[in-house]
Amino acid sequence: MTSTASNNSASGTTGTPGQPTIAELPITDDEIFLAHVGGKLSVELRSPIDTQRDLSIAYTPGVAQVSRAIAAETELVNKYTWTERLVAVVSDGSAVLGLGDIGPRASLPVMEGKSALFRSFAGLNSIPIVLDTKDPDEIVETLIRLRPSFGAVNLEDISAPRCFEIERRVIEALDCPVMHDDQHGTAIVTLAALRGAVQVLGRDIREQKVVISGAGAAGVACANILLAAGVTDIVVLDSKGIVSLHRKDLNEFKEELAERTNPRALQGGAAEALAGADVFIGVSAGTIAEELIASMAKDPIIFAMSNPDPEIRPEVAAKYASIVATGRSDFPNQINNVLAFPGVFAGALDAGAKRITERMKIAAADAILSVVADDLRPDQIVPSALDRRVAPAVAAAVAEAARAEGIV
Amino acid sequence: MTSTASNNSASGTTGTPGQPTIAELPITDDEIFLAHVGGKLSVELRSPIDTQRDLSIAYTPGVAQVSRAIAAETELVNKYTWTERLVAVVSDGSAVLGLGDIGPRASLPVMEGKSALFRSFAGLNSIPIVLDTKDPDEIVETLIRLRPSFGAVNLEDISAPRCFEIERRVIEALDCPVMHDDQHGTAIVTLAALRGAVQVLGRDIREQKVVISGAGAAGVACANILLAAGVTDIVVLDSKGIVSLHRKDLNEFKEELAERTNPRALQGGAAEALAGADVFIGVSAGTIAEELIASMAKDPIIFAMSNPDPEIRPEVAAKYASIVATGRSDFPNQINNVLAFPGVFAGALDAGAKRITERMKIAAADAILSVVADDLRPDQIVPSALDRRVAPAVAAAVAEAARAEGIV
Repeated sequence: MTSTASNNSASGTTGTPGQPTIAELPITDDEIFLAHVGGKLSVELRSPIDTQRDLSIAYTPGVAQVSRAIAAETELVNKYTWTERLVAVVSDGSAVLGLGDIGPRASLPVMEGKSALFRSFAGLNSIPIVLDTKDPDEIVETLIRLRPSFGAVNLEDISAPRCFEIERRVIEALDCPVMHDDQHGTAIVTLAALRGAVQVLGRDIREQKVVISGAGAAGVACANILLAAGVTDIVVLDSKGIVSLHRKDLNEFKEELAERTNPRALQGGAAEALAGADVFIGVSAGTIAEELIASMAKDPIIFAMSNPDPEIRPEVAAKYASIVATGRSDFPNQINNVLAFPGVFAGALDAGAKRITERMKIAAADAILSVVADDLRPDQIVPSALDRRVAPAVAAAVAEAARAEGIV
Repeated sequence: MTSTASNNSASGTTGTPGQPTIAELPITDDEIFLAHVGGKLSVELRSPIDTQRDLSIAYTPGVAQVSRAIAAETELVNKYTWTERLVAVVSDGSAVLGLGDIGPRASLPVMEGKSALFRSFAGLNSIPIVLDTKDPDEIVETLIRLRPSFGAVNLEDISAPRCFEIERRVIEALDCPVMHDDQHGTAIVTLAALRGAVQVLGRDIREQKVVISGAGAAGVACANILLAAGVTDIVVLDSKGIVSLHRKDLNEFKEELAERTNPRALQGGAAEALAGADVFIGVSAGTIAEELIASMAKDPIIFAMSNPDPEIRPEVAAKYASIVATGRSDFPNQINNVLAFPGVFAGALDAGAKRITERMKIAAADAILSVVADDLRPDQIVPSALDRRVAPAVAAAVAEAARAEGIV
């Protein structure tokens, strides 16, 4: 918790020419920690309880009428409680940001942040639920027991490959929207960005040779959504090289991935994968050497999304690439999940959907792109993470897709 | 959902002499249901997320610093997340108000109301957690897994005798304040009220012959706290009569109760219990006939706390009693748990207490009474449920007791 804030803030506020403004000043640890004291969320009353009348309505005896009505007609719980618009952000703290398995308590600031974003961008209520177990059976079982407490589940920062099984089982067990954001939020925004990029360049997404670096939660989901969007040539890299059917060390999820990707049956590592490729999507914590980028097809598309350190520095990538995107806010084309998850859940809840389907996810990607459709540029293939138009557009598109699919 | 509001509201607003004001108008079902649409709670941000800087502090990359700090030093979770001041209101919906086992969903409006009262009276954050299981093992196990998500547990509306075992096991399993409010909240306020009553009358609480009608959660806890406060002659009634060692049909909790109460070894029912008694405490859904009240000692104290229908009408009880209290807001001396639970949890959390002890509960009762100590009257033996001075006084007393006991 070191600080340079006190040294810098004075020059920041004076606005001396050539000095950074406050907005540009580096964020200090002190500033971060101060902003977290007491946490980032509060529970508030939607109406005050000041009078005996207020108390008699919100609590006994009046509340008994509402409980009686729900007991008689269960569906009324959606109308008369907060659960219909309440997203539980659920984590076991096993894969938190780039920090790894830091446990449920240390994951809480991230989950509070996520809940804050649900509130801020989509007007949803959201509470962090962090679990002191990493056992998939226990996680699924716990969420089944908690089901009446919320209206949707955003699974967060659960390590791969456990996350695949846990998400599948939670979706099966609960009659409400469930999404592991590290998978599908990332995938949705990546698809939006890739569509934006090929549109700017006048290319066909189906003809792109795509390399995905990382076969964890995000990598697998990106591969899946790109396949669903018509991309046919995807090569996925994990820490041991190309995920291919030649390998004997693949877990069941990677084996399944190998079956659906790598159509040219490549073997080897990043060099073999990247030679002649059109698109690089980095969702690992690794790095990619400049010469490998140089080996790609002419004017490639580079999404170096690892955070905080991209797989390759954007200014280096730009020497070769026609379009560069990262996960960072201090470069153009930030691929940030906040473009997706608030609107996806809001739309699913608006439609009363019981599932978040592939079609809803693709509709979300389209909607993200639609916000900047008339203003696409190489340095604006997706909207800003702070663009308030995105979540309502995504919510409307997702709700429409849900209704069209009849999963309501 | 019938309504007479539209008929009455016009006359209420005109303030015609002899007509009720709005505050006095009967509360209609329409008004109650309207106040519950969308639920009674919302989750809000403590600071807005409007700029890239806000986002970088509340979420990635800034939040990683806070997570890293908590990973290194677990205790920091109390400083940098909302959990230290977050009370989970936990129910399985098995004994909701007087409605019985209506299940977790139908219990939600009550739990939201409880969370709203925690916020309103003690400034605590609080979320309803309703569980789709009634199995004690599963309830305890679920709360153990959820432990990192909150700072305290208010168990609510769990049926007796399950509630005794569940509370005991949750207290043992969790290193944080846990209290079943239907037991101890009621007991604390009852003790405060009885102390207020005997003070008004110049009597000694230890010499009172007390009859408690109801051997469920509230009855058992009232007996326990009155014993701890020095009352020696307590007779408890359940639906089958006096809880005594003569009976063979007692469960383990009632048997234990029988060992500590009924010192005169009475047998029989309400008639035998009430003859000559000084105090009647009703915490059941039953009724007590007027002639039984007439058989009590001279000028008895009557707490007819069943809701919404007291065991005996206050105006009937007043023909015999020196002091009458109920659970209702439309009569003097309302014995309402809201006088206790917000301050009890706030005080326990303020002190960093890991337990809520008997001494803390008795300190809470003293503190409740202290607020009206200088103004005690037969029709004011406890403060109003809306008295904003109570929760801070209770919190201070509970925190002091916790520190004195060294359970911090």
